Amino acid sequence: MAEGSISTTMPSYKLTYFNVRGRAELARYLFLAAGRDFEDYRIQREDWPELKPKTTFGQLPILEVDGEQLAQSNAIARYLAREFDMAGENSWEQALCDQTLELINDLIKELVAAELQKNAGEVVFPKFLGIFESMLAKNGKYLVGSGLTVADLALYAVFDTPLQNVPNMMDKTPKLKAHRAMIEAIPKINEYISKREKTDI
Amino acid sequence: MAEGSISTTMPSYKLTYFNVRGRAELARYLFLAAGRDFEDYRIQREDWPELKPKTTFGQLPILEVDGEQLAQSNAIARYLAREFDMAGENSWEQALCDQTLELINDLIKELVAAELQKNAGEVVFPKFLGIFESMLAKNGKYLVGSGLTVADLALYAVFDTPLQNVPNMMDKTPKLKAHRAMIEAIPKINEYISKREKTDI
Repeated sequence: MAEGSISTTMPSYKLTYFNVRGRAELARYLFLAAGRDFEDYRIQREDWPELKPKTTFGQLPILEVDGEQLAQSNAIARYLAREFDMAGENSWEQALCDQTLELINDLIKELVAAELQKNAGEVVFPKFLGIFESMLAKNGKYLVGSGLTVADLALYAVFDTPLQNVPNMMDKTPKLKAHRAMIEAIPKINEYISKREKTDI
Repeated sequence: MAEGSISTTMPSYKLTYFNVRGRAELARYLFLAAGRDFEDYRIQREDWPELKPKTTFGQLPILEVDGEQLAQSNAIARYLAREFDMAGENSWEQALCDQTLELINDLIKELVAAELQKNAGEVVFPKFLGIFESMLAKNGKYLVGSGLTVADLALYAVFDTPLQNVPNMMDKTPKLKAHRAMIEAIPKINEYISKREKTDI
């Protein structure tokens, strides 16, 4: 439990997003890896205009914890990681997890920019696959410290869509491939992805 | 001090960046607001190619803590905020700080996009100024909780360049203006900005 938390009962979690992986899948993976219950509330596109003004910044996903709203997918992910002991073992490891989440943001930003130049496959993916492969070569089974953290799940999540489009993308990065298999072997994640509805994003 | 920290002596901090505010100024403000010493190491552009391969991801800023490198400006900011007790009073407030840092990222992203459409003044700034003004109206003097946090300093930092270009930008958002004056009244920040060399970014 987090510092400052005085609740002795389990909080109730409700995650609201569209019916895609997108920016909510990392939070879902965190709940699954931690074995914690949550309401995975998926709205239809046509329901969004009515809900939008009730959200903190007019954005999804939002997480409600005992009815209190938290916005921004990475703030949600880091919060859940702290609550579920997947944020590293101390403040420095928490910073190293953060560093990885921010690097993954850079990857997403560069992919958006690459849309214009059509060079994701030649430039952006090779660069980032190389960086992540090196990080695993240096640290071992996990990206940070000696246990599963939000950084590992974020790395897993960000390649969901690219691998759906280009399945052999990790053929030259065996450590990344093994890392991915390690995440997929987590029973609740395994069960979830085997049943998950296929979506484009 | 952070959980897990067992050091009894003060760590040594070295922040490396270019000689501009840019992505390092928030970390500098955190050191100043906390009254903590650090080495504010500013490299020349021509020295970057030699340093680049020695940095974690080939990026600046980097923070070295007793010689260990941390990359990514927001990971650095959140780490320093935790170390200096400016990350909120508990995990939930830490999440609310995070939510604000991510919103500020959105502002930066929308400004980059607005470069193309030349609509920053008509669309992006009014939207975000309105959001921040409402947040202050709701929470009071500070953005999160009842004390100064990294969220306040991040809000301050992100408007440095816009206000340099458009000084009357906050004339219609008095709470934001007062918030800014509150930050500028912090003695070490006040002293720093009065002596700071003027740069474009």
